[in-house]
Formats: sequence, structure tokens, C-alpha cells
Amino acid sequence: METKPTEISSSKMFGGYNKRYKHYSPILGCSMTFHIYFPPSPSLCHKFPVLYWLSGLTCTDENFISKSGAQRVASSEGVALVAPDTSPRGLNVEGEADSWDFGVGAGFYLNATQDKWKNWQMYDYVVKELPKLLSENFPQLETSRASIFGHSMGGHGALTIYLKNQDKYKSVSAFAPLVNPINCPWGQKALMNYLGGNKAEWEEYDATCLITKFNGVRATILIDQGEDDKFLHDQLMPHKFEEACKKANVPLLLRLQPGYDHSYYFIATFIDDHIRHHAQALNL
Amino acid sequence: METKPTEISSSKMFGGYNKRYKHYSPILGCSMTFHIYFPPSPSLCHKFPVLYWLSGLTCTDENFISKSGAQRVASSEGVALVAPDTSPRGLNVEGEADSWDFGVGAGFYLNATQDKWKNWQMYDYVVKELPKLLSENFPQLETSRASIFGHSMGGHGALTIYLKNQDKYKSVSAFAPLVNPINCPWGQKALMNYLGGNKAEWEEYDATCLITKFNGVRATILIDQGEDDKFLHDQLMPHKFEEACKKANVPLLLRLQPGYDHSYYFIATFIDDHIRHHAQALNL
Repeated sequence: METKPTEISSSKMFGGYNKRYKHYSPILGCSMTFHIYFPPSPSLCHKFPVLYWLSGLTCTDENFISKSGAQRVASSEGVALVAPDTSPRGLNVEGEADSWDFGVGAGFYLNATQDKWKNWQMYDYVVKELPKLLSENFPQLETSRASIFGHSMGGHGALTIYLKNQDKYKSVSAFAPLVNPINCPWGQKALMNYLGGNKAEWEEYDATCLITKFNGVRATILIDQGEDDKFLHDQLMPHKFEEACKKANVPLLLRLQPGYDHSYYFIATFIDDHIRHHAQALNL
Repeated sequence: METKPTEISSSKMFGGYNKRYKHYSPILGCSMTFHIYFPPSPSLCHKFPVLYWLSGLTCTDENFISKSGAQRVASSEGVALVAPDTSPRGLNVEGEADSWDFGVGAGFYLNATQDKWKNWQMYDYVVKELPKLLSENFPQLETSRASIFGHSMGGHGALTIYLKNQDKYKSVSAFAPLVNPINCPWGQKALMNYLGGNKAEWEEYDATCLITKFNGVRATILIDQGEDDKFLHDQLMPHKFEEACKKANVPLLLRLQPGYDHSYYFIATFIDDHIRHHAQALNL
């Protein structure tokens, strides 16, 4: 089982390349795919900072690459995009594909503690295994200079991972993130099944809880939220996070976007602002 | 059977809206879907010119809308995008889905004469039925001010439709178009099956043949072609069209793009240039 990434596709875009790789992940115990967008290189030894994108429920590593249009400004700003998958796949755990919001395509970027879901270690995969793999295999990436963003479940992932690892990421942003999973149906279902009934453990994966614990947030957090997003009131509840940020004195720019929904059309509309937000933090 | 279009989805993007519609097409004898991107409107009575996009083999009306990124500049230039489907669907003609390059998803923008494929009238659908439908149902569209472009089989469609209807379209462009279908495998298979063995009829749907007949081409034809496109040498052969344009004294800008393939990543990279090419011809 090959832990080194093998290139499985390559397409030129905006002067750079979208490349898809496959590798065996020891942490997850299965084969995984991920995408990298490499901007056009100004010189042979140039190193690009890395901007991780975490996708939402049901997505693979491909949705963002084919639908967001992020490569246009990533190319001009000179930042590499890295898009992992959203869960382990192909393990045939009983019930893993029974619902669209749990199991396959729904890793929630946490480390499961319940035996049945022991392979669901997406937190360690994103925070530890993937950066190490990139650092060891892609000399054109400067993995010590990194930022992170995501959408919906992936916005939750980006926020929680950033808050717990401010030494590893320069900035964070999110589109329609799940900011308070302990208090919404998607989150409660996932947290109960992956972590069991101890709610203190749930809070370790909840951005609204975490923000009160980490008062050293330096960079402004950028969040875009569509006002016509059908998940806004029951699942996403960005105002809970906004209140918590105010209390903790954390700089947050929450932009409510009238008329926009939860789709990649919404993401594509505002992606340039997010890339530039990160480019600035990455000193580009 | 409702011939008036019914809206089946709507998503805001770059200030405007992607809307998908369903309607019964009397010309094709089946239900069809199409997408319109409406730019943000400067006033209630504003009318947008229309830019038709014809997709390639296997596509529906959705691929261009979700992957091209065309809406960004369509929004700023103020041009509406209209993307029809690529063939009739749901008719259950024997063998219609046996191959990816013929039948369903492969209408080739012609009017079939062979009885078995009598519903395959995509030329009349695109040139006659759809513009009439738009004109009658969308007062915000100025259908008399229109241009046309497309990809691969849809590039063939755009070029042939433009050359035969210069009174209807102000300009044409194409990505990796099939410019000489009478001389390539995709084209020969489609033309033989849809039109039968009379090759004089085939030439009516071949841009390289048509260009010699219509010497009144006013606007420069823009074509982008990836040099790493795996279909370049066997199917697309843009140089045949280039030669014919030279002979016929037709202005052609054929741009060979090193490293680019046949995908929407290639299209997204150069789509802004194409939208601006048409915006200029449409006097925006």
C-alpha cells in the first residue's frame, strides 16, 4: 500500500495545474484522493504557501476544484490550493452510506473515539498526516506557511482546526460554516455517533465553544453567509458564533449576503475576497 | 404538456441569477431543460442581449453553468447566458444511450432526416424554438441581439449555426470545436446515422465546408484550442478550418494554448476573453 502520493490526473488552468493524487493513509486505514492547484511558477525553486480547503457534506476532493473558480485568483496571488476528501471511503463499515449527513462524505474533521468509526480520524488526517505528506513530497510547497478555509461542515472544520492550531495556520475564513455543532441536528448526530455521549468532548469540536478558550486570535476571521441559505436558521446559526466572538474580543467579519443560498454559486461569487484575505495573512 | 417554461431552480451568483427551466418542446417531442444566467439588472425595464452556449458530448444544460465561471464577466458586461441541453431525452429510442458520442447527449445541433432519429432536431430547437420561447416569456431578454459560442460538439454547433444565420447572431466563438465533422470519426458516425449516406447533406453541417459558401462573414471568429487536447489531431483538426478561412478571406483568430486539455478547466481559463469578444460585437 503506497503512502507516497501518485498523480492520477492533471489539467492546466490559469497557467498552473490542477493535479489529483491518490495515496494510502495509515491514519484513516484506506486509500484517499486529494487535489492540489499549483499556480504558475515564477522560477524553478519557487515555493508557494498553502491554502487548505475543507469541503462540506457529500463532497469529495473534486467539487471545490471544478466549481469554485478559486484558481483564477490563486494563480495571480501565487498561493497553492489543497483540497482533501471529506471522509474515509471504501471501508464498508455497516451503515456508513445510509445517510447523506453521516459516515461517508461526512467526516466532520474530528477524531472519532467510538470503535465502530475508529477510521474516521479526519482531524489528524488534515492537521498532521496531509501537511507532512505534502512537505515530504512537494518541494514547491512551503507547508510551514499555511492558511485554511472551508464550506458548511468544512467551515466548521476550518474554524475548529484553526482555533486549536494557530501555530500552524496564519488565517481562517469560511462560507456558511456550521459554527455550533453541539446545538444543531447535523452536529448532534455526528458528535453522538463519532464521540459518544460525553458532551465535554463535543465542545472540543465546536467553534463557538472553542472561541471562548482561545483568546489569542490575531487575524480577523472572515465569514460569508447567504441570507437565503435554507440551512441558515436550523443548522448554521452564525449569530451564535458572532456573539461568542464579541464576548471573547475576537475580530470577526461576518458578511450576510442577501439572496444567496448554500451552493457553489454563492462560494464562486465571493471566493476572490477569501483568497485575498488569506494572501494578505500569508504575506503575499 | 406545458410548452411555457417553468422555473425549477434559482441560485444567485455575482449579483444575478442562474435559473433552470423545464418546458415541453414540440419540435423535439419531449420535455427539455435549459439554464439562463440573468445579470443584475440596472433597472426594471432593462433588456439584456443573449449569448447562447452550446455544450459538448455527454453534457446537459448544467455543465457550463456550474463549471465555466462565465457568470463573473457576464455579470459585469451585462449579457445574459443561455445554455440549452445537447439532445432530446427520455424518448427511449432503441440504442439511444448505447454510446457516449451518439444519441442522448449527442444531438450535434442538426436536424436528423432518418426516421429512427426524427426527434433529433436540435438545429431547429436552438435556432428557432428556443429564441421564440425566450422572446415570448422573458421580457428582460432582447433576443434580437444575440451571439453564440460553444465547446467541442457545441463549438461545431455554434460555428455552423452562425454561418447559416448571420442575420440572427452578431458574433461566434468556440473552444476546441469540431470544425470538420465530415472528416472525423465522431462526425461521420453522427452524420451517417442522423442524415443517412448522402454526403452533400453532411456538408450543410460542416463549418469547414460552409465557410467557403458564406463569404459575408463580418466579425472575427475567435477559437481557443488546447495543444494537449487528446482529441486535437483525430477529431478537432482546427487547421482545416484555418485553411478554409484563409481561402475564403474570413477573419479568424485561432489561439493554440500550450498545455491545455479538453476540459472545463481550459474553458474557465479563457472564458473571460470570449465573453468580452461577444460583448464588443453586441455593442456593450
